[in-house]
Amino acid sequence: MRPTWVDPPISSVRDVVARALAEDLGVFGDLTAGLIPPKATVTAAIRSRVGGVLAGTMTARATFEAVDGSVRVGWLGSDGDAFEPGGLVAEVSGSLVSVLTAERTALNLLGHLSGVATLTRRFVDAAAGRCQIRDTRKTTPGLRALEKAAVRAGGGVNHRGSLSDGILIKDNHLAGLTVGEAVSAAHARWPGVPCQVECDTLDQVRTALEAGAGMVLLDNMDPPQVASAVALVAGRALVEVSGRVTLDTVGDYAAAGPDFISVGALTHSAPVLDLGLDLEA
Amino acid sequence: MRPTWVDPPISSVRDVVARALAEDLGVFGDLTAGLIPPKATVTAAIRSRVGGVLAGTMTARATFEAVDGSVRVGWLGSDGDAFEPGGLVAEVSGSLVSVLTAERTALNLLGHLSGVATLTRRFVDAAAGRCQIRDTRKTTPGLRALEKAAVRAGGGVNHRGSLSDGILIKDNHLAGLTVGEAVSAAHARWPGVPCQVECDTLDQVRTALEAGAGMVLLDNMDPPQVASAVALVAGRALVEVSGRVTLDTVGDYAAAGPDFISVGALTHSAPVLDLGLDLEA
Amino acid sequence: MRPTWVDPPISSVRDVVARALAEDLGVFGDLTAGLIPPKATVTAAIRSRVGGVLAGTMTARATFEAVDGSVRVGWLGSDGDAFEPGGLVAEVSGSLVSVLTAERTALNLLGHLSGVATLTRRFVDAAAGRCQIRDTRKTTPGLRALEKAAVRAGGGVNHRGSLSDGILIKDNHLAGLTVGEAVSAAHARWPGVPCQVECDTLDQVRTALEAGAGMVLLDNMDPPQVASAVALVAGRALVEVSGRVTLDTVGDYAAAGPDFISVGALTHSAPVLDLGLDLEA
Amino acid sequence: MRPTWVDPPISSVRDVVARALAEDLGVFGDLTAGLIPPKATVTAAIRSRVGGVLAGTMTARATFEAVDGSVRVGWLGSDGDAFEPGGLVAEVSGSLVSVLTAERTALNLLGHLSGVATLTRRFVDAAAGRCQIRDTRKTTPGLRALEKAAVRAGGGVNHRGSLSDGILIKDNHLAGLTVGEAVSAAHARWPGVPCQVECDTLDQVRTALEAGAGMVLLDNMDPPQVASAVALVAGRALVEVSGRVTLDTVGDYAAAGPDFISVGALTHSAPVLDLGLDLEA
Amino acid sequence: MRPTWVDPPISSVRDVVARALAEDLGVFGDLTAGLIPPKATVTAAIRSRVGGVLAGTMTARATFEAVDGSVRVGWLGSDGDAFEPGGLVAEVSGSLVSVLTAERTALNLLGHLSGVATLTRRFVDAAAGRCQIRDTRKTTPGLRALEKAAVRAGGGVNHRGSLSDGILIKDNHLAGLTVGEAVSAAHARWPGVPCQVECDTLDQVRTALEAGAGMVLLDNMDPPQVASAVALVAGRALVEVSGRVTLDTVGDYAAAGPDFISVGALTHSAPVLDLGLDLEA
Amino acid sequence: MRPTWVDPPISSVRDVVARALAEDLGVFGDLTAGLIPPKATVTAAIRSRVGGVLAGTMTARATFEAVDGSVRVGWLGSDGDAFEPGGLVAEVSGSLVSVLTAERTALNLLGHLSGVATLTRRFVDAAAGRCQIRDTRKTTPGLRALEKAAVRAGGGVNHRGSLSDGILIKDNHLAGLTVGEAVSAAHARWPGVPCQVECDTLDQVRTALEAGAGMVLLDNMDPPQVASAVALVAGRALVEVSGRVTLDTVGDYAAAGPDFISVGALTHSAPVLDLGLDLEA
Repeated sequence: MRPTWVDPPISSVRDVVARALAEDLGVFGDLTAGLIPPKATVTAAIRSRVGGVLAGTMTARATFEAVDGSVRVGWLGSDGDAFEPGGLVAEVSGSLVSVLTAERTALNLLGHLSGVATLTRRFVDAAAGRCQIRDTRKTTPGLRALEKAAVRAGGGVNHRGSLSDGILIKDNHLAGLTVGEAVSAAHARWPGVPCQVECDTLDQVRTALEAGAGMVLLDNMDPPQVASAVALVAGRALVEVSGRVTLDTVGDYAAAGPDFISVGALTHSAPVLDLGLDLEA
Repeated sequence: MRPTWVDPPISSVRDVVARALAEDLGVFGDLTAGLIPPKATVTAAIRSRVGGVLAGTMTARATFEAVDGSVRVGWLGSDGDAFEPGGLVAEVSGSLVSVLTAERTALNLLGHLSGVATLTRRFVDAAAGRCQIRDTRKTTPGLRALEKAAVRAGGGVNHRGSLSDGILIKDNHLAGLTVGEAVSAAHARWPGVPCQVECDTLDQVRTALEAGAGMVLLDNMDPPQVASAVALVAGRALVEVSGRVTLDTVGDYAAAGPDFISVGALTHSAPVLDLGLDLEA
Repeated sequence: MRPTWVDPPISSVRDVVARALAEDLGVFGDLTAGLIPPKATVTAAIRSRVGGVLAGTMTARATFEAVDGSVRVGWLGSDGDAFEPGGLVAEVSGSLVSVLTAERTALNLLGHLSGVATLTRRFVDAAAGRCQIRDTRKTTPGLRALEKAAVRAGGGVNHRGSLSDGILIKDNHLAGLTVGEAVSAAHARWPGVPCQVECDTLDQVRTALEAGAGMVLLDNMDPPQVASAVALVAGRALVEVSGRVTLDTVGDYAAAGPDFISVGALTHSAPVLDLGLDLEA
Repeated sequence: MRPTWVDPPISSVRDVVARALAEDLGVFGDLTAGLIPPKATVTAAIRSRVGGVLAGTMTARATFEAVDGSVRVGWLGSDGDAFEPGGLVAEVSGSLVSVLTAERTALNLLGHLSGVATLTRRFVDAAAGRCQIRDTRKTTPGLRALEKAAVRAGGGVNHRGSLSDGILIKDNHLAGLTVGEAVSAAHARWPGVPCQVECDTLDQVRTALEAGAGMVLLDNMDPPQVASAVALVAGRALVEVSGRVTLDTVGDYAAAGPDFISVGALTHSAPVLDLGLDLEA
Repeated sequence: MRPTWVDPPISSVRDVVARALAEDLGVFGDLTAGLIPPKATVTAAIRSRVGGVLAGTMTARATFEAVDGSVRVGWLGSDGDAFEPGGLVAEVSGSLVSVLTAERTALNLLGHLSGVATLTRRFVDAAAGRCQIRDTRKTTPGLRALEKAAVRAGGGVNHRGSLSDGILIKDNHLAGLTVGEAVSAAHARWPGVPCQVECDTLDQVRTALEAGAGMVLLDNMDPPQVASAVALVAGRALVEVSGRVTLDTVGDYAAAGPDFISVGALTHSAPVLDLGLDLEA
Repeated sequence: MRPTWVDPPISSVRDVVARALAEDLGVFGDLTAGLIPPKATVTAAIRSRVGGVLAGTMTARATFEAVDGSVRVGWLGSDGDAFEPGGLVAEVSGSLVSVLTAERTALNLLGHLSGVATLTRRFVDAAAGRCQIRDTRKTTPGLRALEKAAVRAGGGVNHRGSLSDGILIKDNHLAGLTVGEAVSAAHARWPGVPCQVECDTLDQVRTALEAGAGMVLLDNMDPPQVASAVALVAGRALVEVSGRVTLDTVGDYAAAGPDFISVGALTHSAPVLDLGLDLEA
């Protein structure tokens, strides 16, 4: 059994599934499934058309169960497991009407979340262990808890869960304060809460260090600049790289020695993983 | 003033914004904005780093207003308008604390929905008016109404809103029924509701026509097969093409003469549009 | 200005309106209103095709405002006012798109609640002041607060708001207890809360009085039986008549001298009042 | 087993039941049931005092289960089945406290929905198979999905589920557009979505046909006018009759040859069906 | 088995538990429990560090079940039972991850509600049966139903559940009306609903009696004044004492002979009961 | 203008106010306020009977506005300001009906939150600047965001907002892991997230330090033990004291030199602050 820390919280799972089903069932329910003889039962396979990393199993299972508590879902892997193209992901059995009614909502969730996990894994692999890959707050509204869990399934680590559990000071926030004043206020009011300062230049990195920031966020620097910043920091703070890092460039950035690279695309631009439900004979 | 039909329903806008803000504000609210002197005000510009098609203005405006009713948002275009890289999309003015607190949620929504509109526009342009581009039910759970409005902003047309407002008969649904029996039952129970039959072969197209389907969904056919199917149908039903059509292939499919091409990627895999908020001096 | 006690609570009004609009707007919003030029404005009259008693003005106004805060609604009467067939009930002005989008939801609420008020008034008039007309808990699920307010607008008085604010002991509840034991327990646990005992016979009335019930509910008795019961009670408790009293029989029941007649039909079977919205030139 | 297409969607059932119970339980719960010895159990029968057509079984069962998962409900029929006066509809067994606590909410739902189904059946029977009976959007706010399912149980068919899944052009919507322009816009923007034009006169019918409407809604015509319109349309569009058709007149209207007759009263004015719960010895 | 009348309504329990868990699980769920080997199981004891009166068992059980339906909770008493310092309150067994994830939310609810019950019991004991102890509407927002149930568990009785189920006329409400006019209006509009008049002086008590109030609320009187008021009322109305009665003074007040003493502190200032969860070997 | 960082997030404020009002208005609304002439207006003062620290102004204002948008509330201080016994806290003016309807809910919230702020201030003052006072997760279910804001208003700092934004390893969590393994896993999975280890003995403190914990939580130690632990830690980690620290002992604990003292009582046992609304002539 895998650790539970890659799982999303049960409250979020229930909430998302209830809304997603209501959205898809509409006023009349599934008109097409209503054509089916009600006694028909089925065993079906969820298969991926492509390779990838699994995420969203709790959510997909909860979708089938919310439609019909007697549908059974057996997973062939856990969140975070890789699968091959054509690989069997799960077996679903029960009433044909129920399985087809839940199919699209379950696959939308599973495909989207596995897409996030898969893209994360690709960044993680490209970083080759030299630094950690983090997500951002650029998540899909309403799905943050699930997407952040999918990032964990992909091998990434999570940045802030909300504006409420981390401080990230940008130029925009100063409004007359110095960085030092802002960091001091942050430390005084929110002791123990991670406090980052965004830096566009080495000078700003120097200022942030003097201000006592625990982490610097290097924004839109190239790998050599990152290497210089890492050298400048010299372990006095954690270093995070941010700003349109791609799969092509992530290796170079990782080689420059930061602690983290954060990638908005993990959650805002991951293509869906193409999963389908095949009825079995 | 542009027609209102590209707008999402107000109920959905309010609901999504309330949830998205609650998700991002968390238990403590915006720790970083809390460092700012409370009297500071700002005028800021929302700009796109890339070119694209605007969508989500109602939603982004509602986000700023939900944080602080005194923030003003002035749009430089309407949903559906194209803008250039670096183009100014909106001006936002009011309390700096409020603007920064709402920023990420507003941009997440605006960027995601403009991303959907932009990808739709590219498909529409590639189809060059020879057929219409439609979305699918492969939407992001919780955001369907907003994403479908963004597809309209991009120039696409909407397929079913839910399982409840259209019938789409696949092999999976038959369970012993003939296609004719299923279509007849659909017509009898749901008169006037669009009824499609999914077809993988010309034989199935023939069967669907005999069954009286009003629309056939050609699944995973290549353009020559589509052309043959269009010829076979000969105007007796609407013809929709589906199944992993890409920007590279959509022109060939459109040339084959169907009425619609439906593209799941419009909503499940559109990359976010890169928008930013720049404070003005 | 009329007293506010006929108004429903604002919490219930907001809640019902938000749900009703979401239900009617669906995924795409009002397709037909979307055809209208967005700049068109309108002044429209809400008129009743028949005579009746007004109820639901707060709710209808809240519906128009929820769709578009700039729509103005001017009422020609307050909840509880009678109007003639063809009578003008309200004037609505603003964006044509907004007015038509809200129309059906507003009229559904106004027509249903005015229907309840109108039927109540007919019972009240038939009772001719000899006793009060009360509603029951046989309300439409989700609309209780609004329907009970409409009963007040019609001149009726409210029975229990929920299972939680009154005690009504029927045979079903005894399960081995005597009526006296049940009434004593009720008084001890819920001092001051109204406690009724349902009685089918004069013997049961006698028992209820001995048990100390503050009110007896005479179930399915005819008017002479009611008169006997009233005589038996002789002012020692309040007397309520219940059980399929109709407009034809309510006068006879009222003449028999009870304090209240409760009528489930007020809320579960009141026909809608036929109201329409007419655009003005 | 009956087909599932008469069932309401599970999301709506759960939502309505949760709200209805919260509304009836209030702050203290069922004071009267709280007098009962907690160990008492019961078997009870739900019987109808009158004949009718059953609807709402899913909803009533969900109500008992929401109060107490160990209560068992056995139905003697399915939604859509007719029953005789005094007929046994269901048997309920379990904790007496739980059964009585849920009783009123379950019966309110079952009685209201069976009332809708029963009135629908009467219209369907009066139309004698010559045309279909449809509902309207004149539903009780918050209960649309359940009432529309009850119409199906009664043998009717459903009109639009919301403003979002059908177009119905009335004079009010034109605001300077011709009917032809409106219908063309509707077809272009919402291909495949049913598009009706409301007509008060034969001239308007002619215009609607020329405009390409797929369905005409004849508003407030008498049966001979309907017959003329049907002759004029001559199969080029579907024909629906609307406007205060009663049980007395529906036969004449049906004989005039339209495809559908829509009746608002099915959902806005159906009297409740009188059902009761009788404890068994 | 104890009577169910001390239980809160199931709707409120479910609602509070769902919100409380969502609040505590946040975006990522229980980070610390995520460190635990997922297969670990546990049997744990809920013990009180101090003596007290149990309340909230339904709510605490619902919390564990909402996290994980397979966790088992066995109670050693029912709501209303007293326990000793160190006394075992419940045994919980199941997945260690689940038990620890639910622990704080379950204990917060159980400790708060048992705190309310315990403080209530102390007042009840101090009143020594000479009068009843009542709560007020000074409850914790969102928890009223649960706190009022805890008051019943402690041996108190409930005052109004909401503004909607009782009338309490204070000077503030008169605005030009006489007390007699207000009481008459109250009786006419809300027959059977408890109607109290708040009195600061014996003169006001006299006025209230003449006005026909069923209950007088003596506000901020000392015990001798209360005794005078009780003598003046002489059984013509119920007498309630209110206004900062403490454990030190409640005995004297009770001895003065009122029917009820209401104490806001029961719900707004009861200290939590110190309960802990101890893992067993 | 005071900084906004003591404010609770607007999402939480709206949510709590909507629920609290619905809870108090019930099915019929405020029966007593309904007796008042509807045109009456009022200016009223909110005064505290005792001295204290203000918190909850956003929430109280939102309550009056939710009942009636035309009620005006003027505060004489901000959250965090101290006031004297009898001090004027706010002036409220508008419709008498509206002000009285909102009164209890607004005062319940203001009194509870000011109670939390006041108790916090007393602990902060007793600690005399030698260490910071923190809250815990022992908050009232549903009110965490508001209570934690009140702690900030009182001069305290916030511990974790939820299980999701901090790690706190207790013996219960180990289940076979060593402390070192647990801390390592925490650091690896949740870099930057605060990680505490609970310690009952100096030996455990030593182990925690070796494990790399960033903070130790000294549970139930006396002040001399705390001093020893502080000496042992010698600045290598932050030190927090926990476990039933009272106002009597907090000074001694603070003198022992920890960084933080966390006090569950701030939120779970703060008595309400006695505030009242006085109508003005």
